[in-house]
Amino acid sequence: MKVSLGPRTHVFPTPTWIVCTFGKDGKANGAAVAWGGICCSKPPCIAVSLRAATYTHGCIMERKAFTVNVPSERYAKEADYFGVVSGRDVDKFAVTGLTPVKSDLVDAPYVKEFPLALECRLAHVVELGLHTQFVGEIVDVKADDSVLAPGGMPDIDKVKPFAYDPSTQTYVRVGGVIGKAFSMGKEVGKKP
Amino acid sequence: MKVSLGPRTHVFPTPTWIVCTFGKDGKANGAAVAWGGICCSKPPCIAVSLRAATYTHGCIMERKAFTVNVPSERYAKEADYFGVVSGRDVDKFAVTGLTPVKSDLVDAPYVKEFPLALECRLAHVVELGLHTQFVGEIVDVKADDSVLAPGGMPDIDKVKPFAYDPSTQTYVRVGGVIGKAFSMGKEVGKKP
Repeated sequence: MKVSLGPRTHVFPTPTWIVCTFGKDGKANGAAVAWGGICCSKPPCIAVSLRAATYTHGCIMERKAFTVNVPSERYAKEADYFGVVSGRDVDKFAVTGLTPVKSDLVDAPYVKEFPLALECRLAHVVELGLHTQFVGEIVDVKADDSVLAPGGMPDIDKVKPFAYDPSTQTYVRVGGVIGKAFSMGKEVGKKP
Repeated sequence: MKVSLGPRTHVFPTPTWIVCTFGKDGKANGAAVAWGGICCSKPPCIAVSLRAATYTHGCIMERKAFTVNVPSERYAKEADYFGVVSGRDVDKFAVTGLTPVKSDLVDAPYVKEFPLALECRLAHVVELGLHTQFVGEIVDVKADDSVLAPGGMPDIDKVKPFAYDPSTQTYVRVGGVIGKAFSMGKEVGKKP
């Protein structure tokens, strides 16, 4: 039986990404973001939402660029740290010991130690309420060569990304193949 | 060392959701969607992207409503089926044996057998290119009582949602706690 939980942001999975920008002072900063997702295939675009009160919000508005970084599970503590302090107060890269690398393609840094980074040019700004949605056109995806599958694309079980559970405010694992998309459904409704 | 993969939609995790609508004929339909995410906390909003060519795209434009349904792993085949055929050609609910339930709150059906459904009123339409992004205000979350934790909120390990891996076009598992958000990062940078 279905029960009503009210108007809430409870859905699974939501990601754990670190959105990186340069500040007015030119310093690299990052923010932990769970509100976001791919939103277009052509041009490839990704959306991330931030509150106007955040430091990163102002940085994206000013630099018109950001990167979306996918942390591995081994960096869960560092990723969480990016969500508990503000770039106005601290240099999160210095404290975590992570290394910002300036993108050659957009005016934003990415995290050297994280396995996957999407370099984005700001394409749309959508005001939704408490959050502003930033749609970035993905100019390039940078992947650590250590996480690539033989075909040259990222292997999710090497990347070891994790999701954010908005219901319990915990991080949860992602990985382990269930089946092939656009394939396993084809047998549905067919007589054996 | 980072290598360039080009402009792609390769990020982890992306969800596997079934977006349900009523068609012009009043029949319930659903589409598998991996491009989407929560995009605002107040009002609570979720974004899903669909190509203009899809049947569901027209249904959302007409009914100004949709539901986002989270399938459990046991329904992976049925969920995939929703992504391999068009509602123009077949009655996906009839073929899968799943049950559409008319929402009392929005002009759209949800999937009875799936553990979690978000009922959404269309709030914004953003044209991005190949995909149109539909932002829905979440009017209510319906959860199956069998997946609730003692506190009354959904338990991700009972819901057993799964993610879509755009790199290999497979479905992968989601679940198993890594740690507490807004908490495990607090020890970063502190002297022991």
